[in-house]
Amino acid sequence: MTSLRELLRVGPAVDLKDIDPGSTPGLPGRKVTGKDQKGWAREQLASMAPELARQQEMLYAGAKASGDRRRLLLVLQAMDCGGKDGTIKKVAGAMNPLGLHIVGFGAPTEEELRHDFLWRIRRALPPAGLVGVFNRSHYEDVLIARVESLVPERVWRSRYWQINGFERDLINDGLTPVKVMLHISYDEQRQRLMERLTDPTKHWKYNPADVDARARWTDYQAAYNDALSRCSTDHSPWYVVPADRKWYRDWAVANIVLEALTEMRLSYPRSDFDLDAERRRLEADRTPTMAS
Amino acid sequence: MTSLRELLRVGPAVDLKDIDPGSTPGLPGRKVTGKDQKGWAREQLASMAPELARQQEMLYAGAKASGDRRRLLLVLQAMDCGGKDGTIKKVAGAMNPLGLHIVGFGAPTEEELRHDFLWRIRRALPPAGLVGVFNRSHYEDVLIARVESLVPERVWRSRYWQINGFERDLINDGLTPVKVMLHISYDEQRQRLMERLTDPTKHWKYNPADVDARARWTDYQAAYNDALSRCSTDHSPWYVVPADRKWYRDWAVANIVLEALTEMRLSYPRSDFDLDAERRRLEADRTPTMAS
Repeated sequence: MTSLRELLRVGPAVDLKDIDPGSTPGLPGRKVTGKDQKGWAREQLASMAPELARQQEMLYAGAKASGDRRRLLLVLQAMDCGGKDGTIKKVAGAMNPLGLHIVGFGAPTEEELRHDFLWRIRRALPPAGLVGVFNRSHYEDVLIARVESLVPERVWRSRYWQINGFERDLINDGLTPVKVMLHISYDEQRQRLMERLTDPTKHWKYNPADVDARARWTDYQAAYNDALSRCSTDHSPWYVVPADRKWYRDWAVANIVLEALTEMRLSYPRSDFDLDAERRRLEADRTPTMAS
Repeated sequence: MTSLRELLRVGPAVDLKDIDPGSTPGLPGRKVTGKDQKGWAREQLASMAPELARQQEMLYAGAKASGDRRRLLLVLQAMDCGGKDGTIKKVAGAMNPLGLHIVGFGAPTEEELRHDFLWRIRRALPPAGLVGVFNRSHYEDVLIARVESLVPERVWRSRYWQINGFERDLINDGLTPVKVMLHISYDEQRQRLMERLTDPTKHWKYNPADVDARARWTDYQAAYNDALSRCSTDHSPWYVVPADRKWYRDWAVANIVLEALTEMRLSYPRSDFDLDAERRRLEADRTPTMAS
């Protein structure tokens, strides 16, 4: 079976217009009804959870016991309502919270603005052994920064190659980037915004500024096309996940992450102490003694 | 029904010797067999998960939408193998990872040692709206620091009241501390260490230094008795959870956290924008336009 990453990976001339946000590439059983596909995808996600957690534990154990510097970083980008939070809840939620390092990026603070755009990113990278998740990322600096003209064009234009160099350095230091763009349609965004207005337990998620950003939809799609085209490199590819169907999105992202972890060929570290000697020490030691 | 917090809370003259690590206080149906109790507790934990997640979401929403500064901090302390990691996996694992802020404390770094003992703790506090978890905490500074004589006695003695003042300040700033000591027996610790030696997927958790610390068991229990007695205050009580039975431990900690969240009387924030006006804006806006 072709890996899902191969199917969803984008190349140097990607145009989001060519990717249907409602499609479900790689999902077996396309001939069954939509409802059955959804049930199947949800079941598959649940049955993947133990393996995701096991891979994550091996990654963690390697860093803890034998100084393995490897770590994984899931980078999530999307338009508003694209489902970043929901994906984190479902995919990262299947893992052990002790081994997660989740960071969200909003508008930069004054202090962050006094540094180069990668400064706050470097500080937020997952330590060895952890699975990091970026809820938005350094890609905002070639998306909103470009669309809203927060910096001059020559500045954001120079960032594509800066990002590529930065990610290459991270890989050389043992980090595996998994960059996922959750691709929703203009109409699906409207429906999700409307839902936030309708359900009182979702009002807090609604931000009138999101509708202002929506007015610049076409500009954002163009900025995404450039970011994906220029920064989907051999060493650090981008995956575009059609995300109008939440059950497909969660299934796909979990699969992509699991494929990346599996490719790392992780294993539980061997002990560097004498197992028998330790067993004897423990056997001998059955009653607490007063040490002082 | 008496709250579990009332049952497990300890007072100013606690002695761990008086608390049976194998007991299951507050668990209904004590007359059924151990196996049935375990199944019941596991089921209860699973059925509590949605309510834990809902409370956590309301806490998060309040900070995000209306500047509510409240947050909760679960402080976990235990002897080695006491089950801190397992508790986090089960209890925090029932929540949304986006709303968690988990920090583990090991031996202080050189930089940390150049500051007062609460410096690294302050930097690790959960931001408004989050559920923080401390895997070990500032209490190590009156436990290992005392037992291993890392600082002179006058120094660790002065820390009890410093901790009480520190926690009072946190509460005044909107933080709800939930301090839980997982109480295991000397024999249970031996069995768990042995299991780590036997199961190759657990070797990485085994540290020969844990057996050295085990030789000072009685000193540690005395240090715990003092820390619990002096720092279980009206505003910031300590709960001792018998932890030889993992299923009781997880059930009890989840209950304590849920009780604390419920007592905060959280609710979803009201919107501060005009719902109808926003709906009209969205309805009008069905096709992406070129903004530039």
